[in-house]
Amino acid sequence: MNDIRSSLHTGALVRRACREGTITGQTSGLAPGFAQANLVILREQDAFPFLRFCQKNPKPCPLLEVTEVGDPSPHNLAESADLRTDLPRYRVWKQGELVEEPTDINHLWRDDLVSFLIGCSFTFESALIEAGLSVKHVDLGVNVPMYRTTIDCESVGMFSGPLVVSMRPLKPADAIRAVQITGRFPAVHGAPIHLGFPEQLGITNLEQPDFGDAVPVEPGELPVFWACGVTPQAVLMQAKPEFAITHSPGCMFVSDLKDKDLAIA
Amino acid sequence: MNDIRSSLHTGALVRRACREGTITGQTSGLAPGFAQANLVILREQDAFPFLRFCQKNPKPCPLLEVTEVGDPSPHNLAESADLRTDLPRYRVWKQGELVEEPTDINHLWRDDLVSFLIGCSFTFESALIEAGLSVKHVDLGVNVPMYRTTIDCESVGMFSGPLVVSMRPLKPADAIRAVQITGRFPAVHGAPIHLGFPEQLGITNLEQPDFGDAVPVEPGELPVFWACGVTPQAVLMQAKPEFAITHSPGCMFVSDLKDKDLAIA
Repeated sequence: MNDIRSSLHTGALVRRACREGTITGQTSGLAPGFAQANLVILREQDAFPFLRFCQKNPKPCPLLEVTEVGDPSPHNLAESADLRTDLPRYRVWKQGELVEEPTDINHLWRDDLVSFLIGCSFTFESALIEAGLSVKHVDLGVNVPMYRTTIDCESVGMFSGPLVVSMRPLKPADAIRAVQITGRFPAVHGAPIHLGFPEQLGITNLEQPDFGDAVPVEPGELPVFWACGVTPQAVLMQAKPEFAITHSPGCMFVSDLKDKDLAIA
Repeated sequence: MNDIRSSLHTGALVRRACREGTITGQTSGLAPGFAQANLVILREQDAFPFLRFCQKNPKPCPLLEVTEVGDPSPHNLAESADLRTDLPRYRVWKQGELVEEPTDINHLWRDDLVSFLIGCSFTFESALIEAGLSVKHVDLGVNVPMYRTTIDCESVGMFSGPLVVSMRPLKPADAIRAVQITGRFPAVHGAPIHLGFPEQLGITNLEQPDFGDAVPVEPGELPVFWACGVTPQAVLMQAKPEFAITHSPGCMFVSDLKDKDLAIA
């Protein structure tokens, strides 16, 4: 299995492996250098307010692409891709309840569906690691710790909820570098939104994340907080639209875009 | 006097006022938007190691221009300027001792002198204020607090000494913005070198700066530290070269360059 994974060195190869059913799990580490994306699929009637929600909240919901109504291909991110088959695993939601977790959604496709591809922090973590910074949850082999904050997103219609943030502990000089590096990636959450004082975000205990795994903040390190792509998913689940499809956690869409193509300047 | 100062709205006008003896004090606030610079003048024999020192320590010693030997004009910063007359006040040093504080140095000029123009934090403070951040020592009308650290500069020959830093207290989100904004100005010290833990720099008491005035850090604010242009002056005074001239504190060279011309990206 490891041999198969390490041979998938482009987005196109990962997507083919998903389509053929060879890959049905996490995409982390696949096709290094290729940008991965969160997926949200909604009916056209819910798509418009959700799009406005994303545009009002660009730090947690940076849109890489929104497809044409009924078109399962994200032409900018990967011309040849089919969003119905090219992710490892999906989650199907009815009125906010998880009803199915299939490896393709051909049987559920409809002509009124709109797909949202939302930037993923894997991209900026690659840039941090390439710059020589150590990203602790990656080193520890666990998920990044994520927290609900007391900061509300700008709401649009039924879409509302708290900003969710991810936290990475960094030494001060590395935190400064991380601001500079991730600031170059506005399409994948950009610069941190906070550092230093979790209580200012309404986070009372860093050791108890709301999602992901706890990661220790050592003395002399600062907890650095970024807006997180779990925000739109949490908001979506709270809004309980009649029908929605998302990627299954960690099972992202792997695009043809390179991480470095998402850097500005 | 205030009328005269507010009429000096370009670098050329400030330099002429200095040359004519109308302005003999601080340049802070003159010719808003024009970049000001620290001045160090050394004999050719000391100039080469000092230049190498600056190039090894670009954060505290960002060089805007180094003149030709014996040429009193910094052609890139201000074609028409004469460094012997165009600053409000100078300090003349012999073996590290202050011997004179004249308003021009025509009587001291020699054909073997080299002038160093070094970037000044006024430039990035303007950018911070323009971005809507409040810079506390400016609001309080005092000098920025500066501290000797336990971090040594890279030494070259007789030029060595500790890094001196300036400190500005900022709320976390403003500290992040400040990293992004000042990072665009590498010619004027660039991004901060530290934030959060003064003790990691060997600073034991923020209320007792080594230079400038104390400024309170309120609960919920982070102390943010930038490499400071006082570093080369402190190093110079410690090296005690036979002969040196610098600007008098706060009496900077005002160039034709705009602050915004010093921004990258």
